[in-house]
Amino acid sequence: MEDRTPPLTGITVIDLGRVLAAPFASSVLASLGARVIKVERPGTGDDARHFGPFVDGRSLYFASVNCDKDSIALDLKSPHDRATFDGLLEIADVLVENFSPGVMDSLGFGWTAVHERWPRLIQASVSGFGQTGPLAKRPSYDIIAQALSGMMSLTGHADGPPVRVGASIGDLVAGLYLALGVVSALHKRARTGVGDFIDVSMLDSQVAFLEAAVTTYTATGVDPKPRGTRHPSIAPFQAFRCADRWLVIAAGNDDLFSRLAQTLGRNDLPLDPRFATNAARHASVEALEETMTLTLGTRPAAHWIELLGSAKVPCAPIQTISEMTRMEQIVARDMIIPILDPRLGGARVPGNPIKMASVEPPLARRAPPDLDEHRESILAEIANASTISNIEVEAHRRPKS
Amino acid sequence: MEDRTPPLTGITVIDLGRVLAAPFASSVLASLGARVIKVERPGTGDDARHFGPFVDGRSLYFASVNCDKDSIALDLKSPHDRATFDGLLEIADVLVENFSPGVMDSLGFGWTAVHERWPRLIQASVSGFGQTGPLAKRPSYDIIAQALSGMMSLTGHADGPPVRVGASIGDLVAGLYLALGVVSALHKRARTGVGDFIDVSMLDSQVAFLEAAVTTYTATGVDPKPRGTRHPSIAPFQAFRCADRWLVIAAGNDDLFSRLAQTLGRNDLPLDPRFATNAARHASVEALEETMTLTLGTRPAAHWIELLGSAKVPCAPIQTISEMTRMEQIVARDMIIPILDPRLGGARVPGNPIKMASVEPPLARRAPPDLDEHRESILAEIANASTISNIEVEAHRRPKS
Repeated sequence: MEDRTPPLTGITVIDLGRVLAAPFASSVLASLGARVIKVERPGTGDDARHFGPFVDGRSLYFASVNCDKDSIALDLKSPHDRATFDGLLEIADVLVENFSPGVMDSLGFGWTAVHERWPRLIQASVSGFGQTGPLAKRPSYDIIAQALSGMMSLTGHADGPPVRVGASIGDLVAGLYLALGVVSALHKRARTGVGDFIDVSMLDSQVAFLEAAVTTYTATGVDPKPRGTRHPSIAPFQAFRCADRWLVIAAGNDDLFSRLAQTLGRNDLPLDPRFATNAARHASVEALEETMTLTLGTRPAAHWIELLGSAKVPCAPIQTISEMTRMEQIVARDMIIPILDPRLGGARVPGNPIKMASVEPPLARRAPPDLDEHRESILAEIANASTISNIEVEAHRRPKS
Repeated sequence: MEDRTPPLTGITVIDLGRVLAAPFASSVLASLGARVIKVERPGTGDDARHFGPFVDGRSLYFASVNCDKDSIALDLKSPHDRATFDGLLEIADVLVENFSPGVMDSLGFGWTAVHERWPRLIQASVSGFGQTGPLAKRPSYDIIAQALSGMMSLTGHADGPPVRVGASIGDLVAGLYLALGVVSALHKRARTGVGDFIDVSMLDSQVAFLEAAVTTYTATGVDPKPRGTRHPSIAPFQAFRCADRWLVIAAGNDDLFSRLAQTLGRNDLPLDPRFATNAARHASVEALEETMTLTLGTRPAAHWIELLGSAKVPCAPIQTISEMTRMEQIVARDMIIPILDPRLGGARVPGNPIKMASVEPPLARRAPPDLDEHRESILAEIANASTISNIEVEAHRRPKS
């Protein structure tokens, strides 16, 4: 019979993460079927619990990356709680954290110590700059990674003020790379029997996401400029202002461009030598925008979307979050799903974008945990595991005596 | 002895991908040790080979995501080449593609057919809208995914024109999710013995990257607005104009803010009720920017970076790509590494941001392949595999006779 379980079924992740990068990584691992136990500081818990906006005192920010997790509060400096944490590592496959480099060592849970005691455990660390290098111990935040990496130098209008990518991709990209590192290490562990240490930085991850900018700069010596909504080498591939709102059009090849021109009633455009080829259009992109806007600006976006859609010219309105959530396609793909927590005012979260044929996608996510909510069941589980392992030790001893 | 091989050693990926999302996914898998065979259309090959800029007729865009891959040109509509492709699937663990949904079916390589013939094979498809839903067959491009998902509604200045994230995160995020889906399916295959089908869309992936925007909108009914360089809930967390250039500062908590104020010689700031707490600063963020700029604007960014650095207030200049490549930290982390191809004018590419303790990171990447460059060796490998499998079949038969 077909195994319909999610791929990471049976994998236990201990997450010491705060705010975003590590909690996002463990949230992704939970979406793939891992069981995640969040270990938080007693009293205040994860800082993100205190980020607004709130519903009845509950952080929506925290809810957005902490569904489907259990929580236990432990003080890793107290001997009693450290013993509990040891018990957690005993039952864990993966330890995720985003402390500043050096903090895990100072707590006695650096990689060397952890690897010696729990050789099958995978430890995954995400930090601003990585575990090595001159800036290793420097604190970082999303905007720092976006600024230093050059990502912000590519984003915005050349003559305008700087722009940060509106979602914290400094954390999110690093978190996703961390999750990939973890699953890759699980794959390797199946072959070797031993765990591994994964070191991902926010800065490195942003650099890996610069598309062709690094290759182009290093070969040509020319720094790329921000281009508003335009593509660095394809035209038209940008936003245009219609009578009521902005519309993006992506019609880079000559066939698409000719269909676009025809749909706009502008058969003059492909005949104009400035617009005859992609290279020409790219070189005259300002003039192209100006003349296309003369036509597009006369009617609302919906009018053009219908006509361009029939002509199979890729185009789309720049949607708000509310418009996106109402798209039939989004609903059909179960991409906005409820959190099973009546206290959160109907808050929803994105579904898992990794659809696997063998796995039924979940249609809801379990409530984000209250701080220390699962203490009793987690302690019972550790005690139980240690009893079992004592029995195993006993069973192992008997034949020898 | 320790196994120092990369995690995906021994995994063979066949990549039918064009341009970005699928080629990026297979490039990530190559960084993790997979062997990638790129199957391209005879004559023109991957469209990205024709995207500028070029060095000696070679596309730097293509080079940025196709290092460490072999290439063979096959016409999947010709019976002879289809037989060769069958041979490739025989030796493969993973098939990656980003055709429009339906194209693989029409070629006879849809999931049902592939799964029946090669039950261990994992097929991974990335598309604009996914394999299901009313828009499934609609073509898409990065800017379409950024526009429809709401990502562009979060990015830019509230009173300014729209902004596309300067790197094609519509493709890149989807490619990274696809790579994670592939490795997760490899993990599951170790348990079940059978392959899986992974369906990732650019739109879904962008939606999963909206941070707290979905949770916040669905609970409050308020659409988030673009905020320039500002964070949705922390202040100051944005760019400020110094005498010569822009500087980002992230000082959200009261302790950091008080050190920031002291460093600027502005002890008046934390005493001002408008700036006394993060909530107050967030509510008065325009006034905060104005008064901080009065001081920051008097000196160059380097002056403030030195002072703020000593006070451990997170800050950074908005760097160009060239500045990023020269950072000591980037060099120390091997994050900009050469392509071993003297024809590419010294072009470099980002290193692998997933650093694993058991694996020595590569210090260079192999040249992007010429179209069909590895035909002979690939054909020999298929022939060899089929001989071996015939021998195995023979060996299997003998005991029965």
